[in-house]
Amino acid sequence: MQTVEVQLGARGYPIHIGEGLLERADLILPHLAQKRVAIVTNAVVGPLYLERLRRTLSAAGVVSIAVTLADGEAGKTWDGVARILDAMLEHRCERKTTVVALGGGVVGDMAGFAAAIYLRGVPFIQVPTTLLAQVDSSVGGKTGINHPLGKNMIGAFYQPRLVLADTGVLRTLPPRELSAGIAEVVKHGLILDAGFFAWLESNMERLSAGEREALTHAVRRSCEIKAEVVAGDERESAARALLNLGHTFGHAIEAGLSYGTWLHGEAVAAGMVLAARLSQRMGLLRAEDVARTVHLLERARLPVRHPALGAERYLELMGLDKKVEGGRLRLILLERIGKAFVTADVPAQALREVLEADAAHA
Amino acid sequence: MQTVEVQLGARGYPIHIGEGLLERADLILPHLAQKRVAIVTNAVVGPLYLERLRRTLSAAGVVSIAVTLADGEAGKTWDGVARILDAMLEHRCERKTTVVALGGGVVGDMAGFAAAIYLRGVPFIQVPTTLLAQVDSSVGGKTGINHPLGKNMIGAFYQPRLVLADTGVLRTLPPRELSAGIAEVVKHGLILDAGFFAWLESNMERLSAGEREALTHAVRRSCEIKAEVVAGDERESAARALLNLGHTFGHAIEAGLSYGTWLHGEAVAAGMVLAARLSQRMGLLRAEDVARTVHLLERARLPVRHPALGAERYLELMGLDKKVEGGRLRLILLERIGKAFVTADVPAQALREVLEADAAHA
Repeated sequence: MQTVEVQLGARGYPIHIGEGLLERADLILPHLAQKRVAIVTNAVVGPLYLERLRRTLSAAGVVSIAVTLADGEAGKTWDGVARILDAMLEHRCERKTTVVALGGGVVGDMAGFAAAIYLRGVPFIQVPTTLLAQVDSSVGGKTGINHPLGKNMIGAFYQPRLVLADTGVLRTLPPRELSAGIAEVVKHGLILDAGFFAWLESNMERLSAGEREALTHAVRRSCEIKAEVVAGDERESAARALLNLGHTFGHAIEAGLSYGTWLHGEAVAAGMVLAARLSQRMGLLRAEDVARTVHLLERARLPVRHPALGAERYLELMGLDKKVEGGRLRLILLERIGKAFVTADVPAQALREVLEADAAHA
Repeated sequence: MQTVEVQLGARGYPIHIGEGLLERADLILPHLAQKRVAIVTNAVVGPLYLERLRRTLSAAGVVSIAVTLADGEAGKTWDGVARILDAMLEHRCERKTTVVALGGGVVGDMAGFAAAIYLRGVPFIQVPTTLLAQVDSSVGGKTGINHPLGKNMIGAFYQPRLVLADTGVLRTLPPRELSAGIAEVVKHGLILDAGFFAWLESNMERLSAGEREALTHAVRRSCEIKAEVVAGDERESAARALLNLGHTFGHAIEAGLSYGTWLHGEAVAAGMVLAARLSQRMGLLRAEDVARTVHLLERARLPVRHPALGAERYLELMGLDKKVEGGRLRLILLERIGKAFVTADVPAQALREVLEADAAHA
């Protein structure tokens, strides 16, 4: 087992990474204020891992209730969060009852938001069961839900007490979801760590085959990079904005196709390629770095061409993005592999051209 | 104008108290990150003060949108908060757009909660227009909504950037609402400041007549006492719990009669009398102090007898209260005027007797 310590001002919490952590009550108990938890999971993960986690907890004397949500981004709405809150109220969960998210990013976002607003905040533990959630949701404290007018528009910054990233559970992950998680792993290399990007170039086949040590290293290094960026900067600001590489495009792809058609990581992959191509067109990034990016993502079986929605539709979809400031679009671009930056100076023409070129027709 | 500075760890904000503050753009401008605000008000306050505030803002170049909610506690639901969020999304409010609550406690709770969760948090300014909101909601950062299973069950701790307590607007407040606000003023004296309680005994008629200097002093001293209690203790804990004097009973009264039948302050007044009588029955408080409490509340035209719901119904309604810990009821009791304390040692028999005695039959 390896551990990354996330530090946020005076507070902090550990991310434990390794095999078989679902059996480790000893890792969970020190973080419970009361031997009662509310486990939130979904219809796919629940049948695989809920009983295993409940056995671990009940053997340690911890009473649990469980709320099983529908699977998928489409369910990330207020109604889903309300189901969690209703169940917690019906079971008279108290201020010291801990909410445990057992699932991927959607479960984590909804359970974390419910924990943030139930009785104005109760303790929260994450047990991410997808690679995406292990490398992305483990650090940063973003929780929330979608709105018909935009993704993740409603939510809270809310930090967990503990993250248990059991890499063993990734073995039951569909290959497409493993790839989606790798997109965020690649992102961490692209924005901040050329050495890690090179490691990924040397190890992509081991990683996408789910090889244990490659996974553990990728999860650990991703959490470390994200923790560095987020440290002392819980809310969105300059450094943290870099983590949005590919995301403004990605959100537009997800919204344009209706949420759930592409996985988040897939949309981010195509979005990162768009950001790289735009950086190249603006004379900022070498063609060779664009090619390395595209090639690495292809080896992870990720889409590198965005869907052909038309430039105007993309611009419209990007217009309501949270990263708009004073009516102006801010984007994350690349200077080289391992170095990203934020800019509000994107020539509209270059943006349109990139959005029109290389699109994938369905 | 008088100013109370609220300090919470590294952060802080001012509460300005005085006449005509709705005209003072100079007090608001330094706290805006962007010259755009979303004003949340209700159907009663809006017609009286919305245009005045908008004129003040627009003369200073600040663009505003307005959301007008229904009046009353019954509307303090997710649907109301969703209306605010929908309007902000439709008008493309951004991360730097400030939410301004113009109204009483319900408007403040809902607008504050919307500000807390819109794009995971945008700046928030309170312009409380009831005495209750000026003395209670101005400090503490509690925001949220009700749930069919309990009051204020869903919400967030979220601090404003600024509170503008214009005592001039209290002149249009119905006398019943002024009295309800005085209940919380009396509470601040009861729990922590015998001198302030004595001042209230000397000035109650001036205060309940809405006399300007009496109001300003009562608001300032209440905010100061609450700010002292809350300082360094944003979340509910020992010291802060004292502010709940009368509230566990009060919430039961509100829920038992269905929210909105009694005003919150009225329920708290009757609840404080219950707490005083229970303290007396347990041999902790002198009969004379109970009598002073009852007499002062009566002079403020507040109810001093709780509705006759029956002891069992009260206990049931109190069972789901947020202040329950490990299944045990914690209550705030009085040792003397100016000194309250938290206890989990309440003999069930004494509690039942107090709930059965002196009830008001409708």
